[in-house]
Amino acid sequence: MNRICNLFNIKYPIIQGGMVWCSGWKLASAVSNSGGLGLLGAGSMHPETLEEHIIKMKKATNKPFGVNVPLLYPEIEKIMQVVIANEVPIVFTSAGSPKKWTSQLQSHGIKVAHVVASSVFAKKCEDAGVDAVVAEGFEAGGHNGREETTTMALIPSVREVIEIPLVAAGGIATGSGMLAAMVLGADGVQVGSRFAISEESSAHPEFKKLVTTLSEGSTKLSLKKLAPTRLVKNKFFEDVSNLESKGASVTEMYNLLGKGRAKKGMFEGDLDEGELEIGQVSAFIKDILPVQKIIENVIAEYNQVKKKLSGEAEF
Amino acid sequence: MNRICNLFNIKYPIIQGGMVWCSGWKLASAVSNSGGLGLLGAGSMHPETLEEHIIKMKKATNKPFGVNVPLLYPEIEKIMQVVIANEVPIVFTSAGSPKKWTSQLQSHGIKVAHVVASSVFAKKCEDAGVDAVVAEGFEAGGHNGREETTTMALIPSVREVIEIPLVAAGGIATGSGMLAAMVLGADGVQVGSRFAISEESSAHPEFKKLVTTLSEGSTKLSLKKLAPTRLVKNKFFEDVSNLESKGASVTEMYNLLGKGRAKKGMFEGDLDEGELEIGQVSAFIKDILPVQKIIENVIAEYNQVKKKLSGEAEF
Repeated sequence: MNRICNLFNIKYPIIQGGMVWCSGWKLASAVSNSGGLGLLGAGSMHPETLEEHIIKMKKATNKPFGVNVPLLYPEIEKIMQVVIANEVPIVFTSAGSPKKWTSQLQSHGIKVAHVVASSVFAKKCEDAGVDAVVAEGFEAGGHNGREETTTMALIPSVREVIEIPLVAAGGIATGSGMLAAMVLGADGVQVGSRFAISEESSAHPEFKKLVTTLSEGSTKLSLKKLAPTRLVKNKFFEDVSNLESKGASVTEMYNLLGKGRAKKGMFEGDLDEGELEIGQVSAFIKDILPVQKIIENVIAEYNQVKKKLSGEAEF
Repeated sequence: MNRICNLFNIKYPIIQGGMVWCSGWKLASAVSNSGGLGLLGAGSMHPETLEEHIIKMKKATNKPFGVNVPLLYPEIEKIMQVVIANEVPIVFTSAGSPKKWTSQLQSHGIKVAHVVASSVFAKKCEDAGVDAVVAEGFEAGGHNGREETTTMALIPSVREVIEIPLVAAGGIATGSGMLAAMVLGADGVQVGSRFAISEESSAHPEFKKLVTTLSEGSTKLSLKKLAPTRLVKNKFFEDVSNLESKGASVTEMYNLLGKGRAKKGMFEGDLDEGELEIGQVSAFIKDILPVQKIIENVIAEYNQVKKKLSGEAEF
């Protein structure tokens, strides 16, 4: 049996990335109800908002689900209290050390996965006792690693240094992408962008519509002096690029960024001044579909490509 | 039968990238003799040097081989004369328009492939009548596309817009990488870095030795204001980065670059001041092997992973 399905007690080894401003209870419950693992994105929620979403989530599904928690979050202690008190079964942590919270969460029976962008950090996760590692490549949307290692190069390296279950992320939106990730050594996949542009995503309709019109080269890794983030090349992106090419300081970059840019873009639909986070796979996303249809399409293509491959001769 | 094997009349759909300072007749003939397609790298040869290599190549193998020609090369007319006069059967062109030379080469019975980094240019290649397209992702070593699309994201997009045979490049050094590329829609693969660090490569021994010690994050896309190039993070790379982060002009960047940096690094072995071009897969390369062993390893792993996958249940 597939190790990710086994670990999280799900039908398909497809995890929905816990994305800011997209991943509320509507999206996450639809994913869990369709056989994947839905994650609430705590990165854009105050503790009381998260609690509300967990309560709604439990009414909307009796399937396993989780919460994604960026560890640099200012209200992290309260967030973890909410997670534990509400008996969330699974936590995905990111942006911080896996040592800090893993054993504490596990002592409450919570399964813990940690998101990394290098095999060095993947090994640290295994040493810290996490149950699974998510390795995310350069093509992913939003926050991204500094080493810029792509999924093709990252997954085999991580697979070589850890024994525990491995989830590939970045560049995966289709069944063939999922199969390629498995071939490279992953046990499952985390899909972000494709679910961000689903009917159930809480992203603004104008943002979703914009993404369906994007093509290759419409996104780029930006804000490298702060925290590298893959953004749509909109007006805000161009403002950042212009400042960067003049050799701006970190302080100048922070001043330009200000506060609430991601909310402004993805949640409020300001396509010019907002930060629009999406992955390179946005080039494949031509429609806004219900979650169940997305998962059906991925699995159908996965099985079809796998079958075709099995029928081909060896070299 | 595999379309790339069919087109080039080779045993395995593995093409050795025609890399500057690495791909002379020794490397290319070893690849062709081992069942792949060896390419001479004209990008670092004067026309008379290329002719010498073609003559030696023909003595060293009776298998198909080709020449890689960057179209921006100053002596391009003479290079093409040498190629045609010496009845080279296959030409891979890059860095320029496929319209310029394709039909002229084909009128001499030469098969033509063109290297691109986007599906827009892939379609232009098909329209220009090339026999195959090489699509190269961001993780590749050396010169690289401006849109920074990774192999995972690039190959399915290119597959969607062209019908002709497609070769995936960037991030491929192993059998599982090759299988992943085929799953994404490629008919074959171009392998650069792994062959650059073979016994038969003409790269300097010190450069080869250095690459076997690299890990993830040891390379980065650099020189973005000139022509984006993936380099090892050595002293020269740091000098470029420092100048870039101060917002240096194109002229300042050219002055720093000067002439002959790639030769100095990869061919003369100056690991500090030279330009050291290698892909992200350098992290997987732990030894300097003979070409035949490299190809045997890739094919054995390809067959093994494919077999294992075929035995797994559908979802």
